[in-house]
Order: sequence, then structure tokens, then C-alpha cells
Amino acid sequence: MSKLKVPYKTYLSEDEIPKSWYNVRGDMKTKPAPFLNPGTHQPMSADELRPVFCDELIKQELDNDTRFIEIPDEIYEFYKMYRPSPLVHAEFLEKALDTPAHIFYKFEGNNTSGSHKLNSAIAQAYYAKKQGLKGVTTETGAGQWGTALSMACAFFNLDLKVFMVKVSYEQKPFRREVMRTYGASVTPSPSDTTEVGRKILAEFPGTNGSLGCAISEAVETAVKTEGYRYVLGSVLNQVLLHQSIIGLETKAALDKCGIKPDIIIGCAGGGSNLGGLISPFMGEKLRGEADYRIIAVEPASCPSFTRGRYAYDFADTGMVCPLAKMYTLGHDFMPSPNHAGGLRYHGMSPILSELYDEGLMEAVAVEQTKVFEAAEQFARTEGILPAPESSHAIRVAIDEALKCKETGEEKTIVFGLTGTGYFDMVAYQSFNDKTMSDYIPTDEDLEKGFAGLPKI
Amino acid sequence: MSKLKVPYKTYLSEDEIPKSWYNVRGDMKTKPAPFLNPGTHQPMSADELRPVFCDELIKQELDNDTRFIEIPDEIYEFYKMYRPSPLVHAEFLEKALDTPAHIFYKFEGNNTSGSHKLNSAIAQAYYAKKQGLKGVTTETGAGQWGTALSMACAFFNLDLKVFMVKVSYEQKPFRREVMRTYGASVTPSPSDTTEVGRKILAEFPGTNGSLGCAISEAVETAVKTEGYRYVLGSVLNQVLLHQSIIGLETKAALDKCGIKPDIIIGCAGGGSNLGGLISPFMGEKLRGEADYRIIAVEPASCPSFTRGRYAYDFADTGMVCPLAKMYTLGHDFMPSPNHAGGLRYHGMSPILSELYDEGLMEAVAVEQTKVFEAAEQFARTEGILPAPESSHAIRVAIDEALKCKETGEEKTIVFGLTGTGYFDMVAYQSFNDKTMSDYIPTDEDLEKGFAGLPKI
Repeated sequence: MSKLKVPYKTYLSEDEIPKSWYNVRGDMKTKPAPFLNPGTHQPMSADELRPVFCDELIKQELDNDTRFIEIPDEIYEFYKMYRPSPLVHAEFLEKALDTPAHIFYKFEGNNTSGSHKLNSAIAQAYYAKKQGLKGVTTETGAGQWGTALSMACAFFNLDLKVFMVKVSYEQKPFRREVMRTYGASVTPSPSDTTEVGRKILAEFPGTNGSLGCAISEAVETAVKTEGYRYVLGSVLNQVLLHQSIIGLETKAALDKCGIKPDIIIGCAGGGSNLGGLISPFMGEKLRGEADYRIIAVEPASCPSFTRGRYAYDFADTGMVCPLAKMYTLGHDFMPSPNHAGGLRYHGMSPILSELYDEGLMEAVAVEQTKVFEAAEQFARTEGILPAPESSHAIRVAIDEALKCKETGEEKTIVFGLTGTGYFDMVAYQSFNDKTMSDYIPTDEDLEKGFAGLPKI
Repeated sequence: MSKLKVPYKTYLSEDEIPKSWYNVRGDMKTKPAPFLNPGTHQPMSADELRPVFCDELIKQELDNDTRFIEIPDEIYEFYKMYRPSPLVHAEFLEKALDTPAHIFYKFEGNNTSGSHKLNSAIAQAYYAKKQGLKGVTTETGAGQWGTALSMACAFFNLDLKVFMVKVSYEQKPFRREVMRTYGASVTPSPSDTTEVGRKILAEFPGTNGSLGCAISEAVETAVKTEGYRYVLGSVLNQVLLHQSIIGLETKAALDKCGIKPDIIIGCAGGGSNLGGLISPFMGEKLRGEADYRIIAVEPASCPSFTRGRYAYDFADTGMVCPLAKMYTLGHDFMPSPNHAGGLRYHGMSPILSELYDEGLMEAVAVEQTKVFEAAEQFARTEGILPAPESSHAIRVAIDEALKCKETGEEKTIVFGLTGTGYFDMVAYQSFNDKTMSDYIPTDEDLEKGFAGLPKI
């Protein structure tokens, strides 16, 4: 087995869980572009955001300067339920690949939500409760975020209304039942319960739904319901802030093992996991203290980084949200229905978009059959059945480790294993049955999405 | 929160994983009764067992004396993938119940098989591989054992044929896909691929299947296929031996915290989890070094301890297996189809049967709606969605904690949280929809099962 003298799993102790989140914007010279009011094209003020978001979260959203923000006690207590998460030395995978590379992964799936999403869900539920709200609304795609938020809301006794992308709602009835067990109500999106949903249904009657569309419905419901606000599981600056706990723990565990990574890899849909994982490493890079290769991995069927445009766009299909400057495929873009799992959002976190635009990180797009091949190999060697999303990172980690095999380099690769695939067995079944196919949008497909970008 | 000064989760370090399994039979004055040859009614010799079981496992099965058996390196390496499992101080549940009791649970669900079954699966796969076999056969009920064994066989590159109880096969297609992802073949039982399956199908065409019936098919297939043996996930002495790692870790973690439990609670189907959890505590009890209340919890719909007979019976419906002396409802007994989840075996581990018969432990039967009420409360407070099986133990742990609330006693309760319920959402859905019902067999129902007991 490996020559490295580190445990298979490195757990921090309970009191080593970070006491503060790290806000990478504090170290960015060029800050991420502000949200714009879609009417005036002026930066959105806190007051303008207040009907949609919780007050404290708006503060975090707009704070481009404070580097460390203390984690409130109630959130810290909840973190102790499932954190610290282990940093795993993938000895069995290294052996199977016969690579000189050292591979580590930060495993965020050992909680009932099955992913890292819980890190931000509990924070957002806490601030909503603290503000005295009755409940919150949200959207969910693959269902990880909705599940996480339902757990968080149950913990603080908050009501929760979830709009679930229709194709996921149908493919994943069990996700819905987990949310219901935690007391949430779940509606397939687009639905006839909102104006925007009815409009989209009228225009595209057979639609599978999209995250952008579910966001529109959730925002409309929050704004129109007394005592409710809207919360979002990715893309936003506040979410990356909360998710920094992944990276902070990863860095602390690596430091404990005396290891400095060469390559850091994460899957990227809206950017919550990747942004959280890389934050302290990117901080060092921004401050000129260290250098790392940082790789975002996205599906070839929804390639916002690798084939999108860096432009202002609506965060949602229904155009009820503020405009965000981000790498985007256009808010009308809908990934092919044969695309399994999450990572199907048309845009990308404004923070990551800015960092990518500055050349501080790379991006790779991978096809899903290759992703599931990596998932199967990982499951069989490392004993964890990964989420399709996470398997994008596994794919590229394996590819980089195989390059090391060719060159003989002993690089250290760290990737984020964001979650488990227990609710993704429909996708695994199509892989097992060899009926899974790939889809790469043509340039013409993408042009249609770009045509809908607002002129700013 | 709690006054106890212990972490929320206690993890042993990797090198504190026990190096040996503990064989409680070594401390039992009256040993569990031996298997009998169904033809001669004489104890089965190792040679008679050899066509069915692996050689080394037969040795372990028949060894009533050796107290500690070293864990081979290859198994120990695999254990490091998912062990040590955490001992959790259920602070949030204590708070919700407002009880002076201290509640701890040993959580065995943080691995892809979703339960403790992996502890024995990897051991049995290892010994099969060591013997140079091509593959193994087995049965699975709720699917936990089959999943665990598929992971273990993938790790050692062994072929695996699983017979899955028909009702579970239909209710849990995703369990099947996990097993397939790990390379196993899965057949619903009863099937037409075996003589015994065809016979049962002819006699009961609409049957939902049972563990006893799936065992018959798996044994027949093993015996008739060159290079194959049969492996079993519960009931057997060898399984309790491997599962002792649960109890050894639990005791080590409690000792680390300076805590001596008053009550130890585990769910009991065939007895693998309960037998493993209690083993070191029972050892102390047998040696007169300490005393504990030990409670087995079983479903009211399949009450082998509380309403069964302590008698020799067939381990399987098809009567191809040896006779085992155990608490049994008769090998013809099939639990009502409205019973969700596992714990549906007609008999009980011979070791536990003997200990129960000697009055060294108690047993309680609980109804499933009460079980799911406990599961929901646990999920919402402790953040883990429990398996229906495990929730039997949660139910009684909560009941005991509520008794402490009445009496004001500060008892320490430890229970086994054997697994997660992510593949049990059909059952949760019926609970959420309030369509779940209870079923308690009448005395007449039970008499029918007893009528089939062999005359010895």
C-alpha cells in the first residue's frame, strides 16, 4: 500500500471544527460583480433584497470585506451532529490505478441529506428562525438541497415549501419522502401554484423543468406569503461562505498530516461545493502565499464554465430574480433530459466566475458515461457509492492520477466527494443496463441560450 | 444541553479498532446447542458442513471455546474504510424527551451497505477467497446483507449470486441496482432457478417470499455449483463472532468516556446486530464481573423471542439446511405482508436463544406504527433517518428514557443504531400517508407455524 504515513481517514477532533467561516471575497482584489436590479440595472441595495432574503443573509451576501465571520453557537451545535467530516486517503484507489500520485478526498456525504448542502442549509434556517419567520421556500434539483433544508428546518421548527424540478420529482420519489419525513411540503416544478409556473407550463407544456424555473416559483411564493423568505442552496456568495467549512477542515486535516496538495478538484454546478472546498487554498493563492492547480469539473451537457459567456444574466428562468454577473449558458438553457443528476444550473457562482475569469482556476467538462465509469470503479475500490455530481470530480482525479502514472510524478491530488448516490439508482440502473447516453450541446444549441441574455 | 462532559461523537482512533473478534461462547457455561443432521438427528460434523460452508468459517462456527480470534490483516484493512464507527451521545434526543437519562447509540450505518452487515460480509468473503472459491451465494431480505456482501465480493473479486425475498425485490429496486453496481447478480425468491423454489412456487403461487425460502434457494445453488459456497448474514455463531466488533468498539468508547451503561438495547431479527453489540457486556455478565439489563427488541408481527418456542427447527423453509435449536415461530411462518423492513426471520441466533433461555437478557415486541413514530422523532432530532429495523431499538430506548423521566433516574442507555433507512422510503411513505397498519399474529396463526416443527 501507499508509502505515505497517514491514517486512512483523518478526523479532526470535535473542538477542531472551525469556529468561523472564511469569506474569500476579503482576499479578492477584484470583487465579484454586484447583483443588478433588472429594471434599473443599478446594484441591488439591501433594502431591495429584503422582501426575498433574510436580513442577516443579505448582510453576508453583500459583505465583500470581512475575512472571517463567526459561526453562531446554535449552528456549531448542529455541525457537531455530522462534522468534522473525514479526509480520506484513497489508498485502495491508488492501488487499483497503480499510480505514484497520492489521492485524498474530503467526504461530505455521511449525513442523511447525503451531501455537503447541509452546511449552508442549517445556517440559512438558523438566520430565518432568528428573524422570527414562519418558514422558507426553496427549489431543489437532484434533491440534495431540499433534503438538507428539510432537516435544517425540522431542527429549528420552521415551515418549508420545496419546489422540486419535475424530472427529479418523478425519478426520485424517495427523495420526496425523506423531505416529507422531515415535515416539508414538496411540489413538482413547474406547477400551477404560481404565476410564473403557469406561464412556463403554458409555453412549454411537456417541460421537464429546470432549476432556473423552480427558483422563479420559490421566489414568487416567498414574496407573496406573509412571514416567508426564499433560500438558495448554491450560486450565492453567502452559500460559498458557509461552505468554506469544507475547505477549512480539509486544510486543517492536510496540515495535520503535513501534506501540501498540488491539485484540488471539485465538481461544479452552481459552485457551492467547489467554492467551499477551495476557499482557504484560493485565499493563499490570492495572498501570494502558495500556489495550487484548481480544477472545476462540469458536465459536458451543461458546460457553463467551458462554453458559457461571462455576462450579466437572470438567476432564474422566470426572470423574477436580480441579474448576476456569471459564466452562463443563458437563463433559457435547459440541459438534455438524458442528463442524470444535478449540476444542471445554467449559471455559475459570481465569485468562482470572477476567479476563473482571472485565470486563477481551470475548468474541464466531462461526459456522463465516463463519469459513471469512474463512479463504479470508485464504489468498488473505496467502498462508497458516489453521487453522480461527485463522480465528476472522481473522473478528473482518476485522469490526473493516471497522468502521474505516465510521468512518474508523485503529485498530491485532493478532491471533494460531495455526496452519496443512494437516491440516484435510476441513473446507475441506466449505466448498469448500458442504456446511458451522452449529450453535448451543439454551438447552435448554445447560441439559442445566449440569445436570451439581457443587453447590459 | 446534557451535563455529561463527553463529545457528541466519540471516535476511536484507527489503531484502536479491535485486533481480535470476541467469541462469547468461550464464556458461556451452557454452550449453544449444536446443529443437527436433519436425517440422523446427530450433531453435524465439519465434514458434513463442508459442501455448504467455507472451511475456515465452519471452524469458527463450531468453536465454542476460543475467546478471542485474531482479525486477518486483509479484513482489518477493509474495516479501516468505514470503521471505527462513532458512539454518539444523543444529546438532542435527550433534550427533546426532557429526560434525565443519558442516551448513547453506536451508529453502524455510515457505509454504503447502510448497516452493520458489512462487518461479517467482508470476513466471509475473505475466507471464501482464501479457500480459492469462484463465488458465493446468499439470500437477502430487506437488502442490507446482500448489499454488504456485494461490496465485500467486489473488493475480493468474487462472484456473487443473491436471492432476494420477492416482496423486497419489488419494493426496493434500488437496492438491487446497488448490488448490480458492485457486480452481483440478483434473483427474486422464490424463483424457478432452483428445485426448492419451483416447489414453493407450485405450492404457494402468490407468495411474497420469505428469508427462510430464499435461504433454501441459495443453499441449493451453492451446493450444485462448482466452486461456490453459501454464506449467511445472521443467525450463525460465526456471524455473531464477526459482529462482536460492534460491541468491542462500543465498550472501548464508553470506557474512554468513563461511562458504564445500565441498559443495552438492540433490535433482533436473526440476532447478528444484537449478538455483536452485547457480546463483551454479556461476557462480563457471564464472568460475574458486571451486570447490565440487556433488551432484545423484535417486531410484534414476527415475535420469535416473546412468543416463539425454544426448539430444534429448520433454518429454512425448504428444509435443506441443518436443524438449529433456537427460539422459533416454525420454519413455515411468514410475516404479514404489511410488515415493513427486515427482522422477518422465523428463528433466532442459537447463542442468543440460549442466553435468553437462561434469563440473561429480556425481550420486547413492538408494533410498527410505534416504531415509525420513534423513527420520525429520531430523524428530526438526531439528524439521521434510521432503518426500520434500527428503529425498533430506538422505540424501546425512548420508552426507557421516558420511564426515567417519570422516576427521575439518571440511567445510561446504549442502543445499536444498525443502519439507515434510505432504501426504506416505501415504508416511510406509508407512514407519512398514514396508511401504515399493525399486525399481531393470533395464537392460532402461531400454532400453524409450531405445527411444522420437526419432532425431536
